[in-house]
Amino acid sequence: MIVLGVDPGSRATGYGLIEKKGGTLGCIAAGEVKWSSEVPFFERVHGIYRKMVEIMRRFEPQEMAIEDVFFSKNAKSSLKLGHARGAVLVAGVECGLRIFEYSPLEIKKAVAGFGGAGKEQVQSMVKCHLRQDSISSLDASDALAVAICHLNWVRYEYEAGRVSRT
Amino acid sequence: MIVLGVDPGSRATGYGLIEKKGGTLGCIAAGEVKWSSEVPFFERVHGIYRKMVEIMRRFEPQEMAIEDVFFSKNAKSSLKLGHARGAVLVAGVECGLRIFEYSPLEIKKAVAGFGGAGKEQVQSMVKCHLRQDSISSLDASDALAVAICHLNWVRYEYEAGRVSRT
Repeated sequence: MIVLGVDPGSRATGYGLIEKKGGTLGCIAAGEVKWSSEVPFFERVHGIYRKMVEIMRRFEPQEMAIEDVFFSKNAKSSLKLGHARGAVLVAGVECGLRIFEYSPLEIKKAVAGFGGAGKEQVQSMVKCHLRQDSISSLDASDALAVAICHLNWVRYEYEAGRVSRT
Repeated sequence: MIVLGVDPGSRATGYGLIEKKGGTLGCIAAGEVKWSSEVPFFERVHGIYRKMVEIMRRFEPQEMAIEDVFFSKNAKSSLKLGHARGAVLVAGVECGLRIFEYSPLEIKKAVAGFGGAGKEQVQSMVKCHLRQDSISSLDASDALAVAICHLNWVRYEYEAGRVSRT
């Protein structure tokens, strides 16, 4: 099974694809979508959608795990984040993926073992989980962390005989 | 020229299509996209995108006018509004429309003459502009108001010899 993890953000949207073969997790691809602030806002939003659709068609993941909403106190940031998240969700449904959402706390606990882990700690643990050293972007490692969190949940749910989270 | 006006909202997204023939404005279609809260959030966001694409393909507007961001103090509402707005913008760029944004103040001034007009006053004036009595939804009349605002701006800009707002 291939899972696409996404960490949408108002400045950059991280993505990471993980394939599970038996008990082993392998990173297929990871990166971030980032645009110059000179590009009109609506084109940047569409760019996130286009990039997501491109990734989904190329790697054909069956499921998408996305970071759940972090309620910032800043309404302006929330609004921008909403645009990015909306573009990602539209792409996911459009490409027929099953969508799962996880809170930042769930993700950090799943990857680093505790909810207070910083971005660097998460990245370090993601590298250990995937046995891969070449993940440089923090947005990409955050996205891979969401995918790992989902795959942990899937394993747990399958073991418990439950398969639907939505 | 056919203009699609959109008023995205966290609960309902209004839309309205206006055709300008000579000096006359005619309403082609108007309505709102609304979903039961029982439908998963990501499906509602995709539903806005799907409906917008359907309208754009059916009526083939060349330009889209969308209400600019109203900075609510509530981060949760802003986030939901962002998702809806993101879905509308993705649809607009995907269908090749030129996109224009107007603030609530600009829209109210253009339609009702003053920035403090309420939703009912805006609806009443929209009915006058379009000589049509059958607009019942306030979200639809708000969307038509955005399209009227844009058509006013286009007329003004053409008269002044300027044609690009973006």
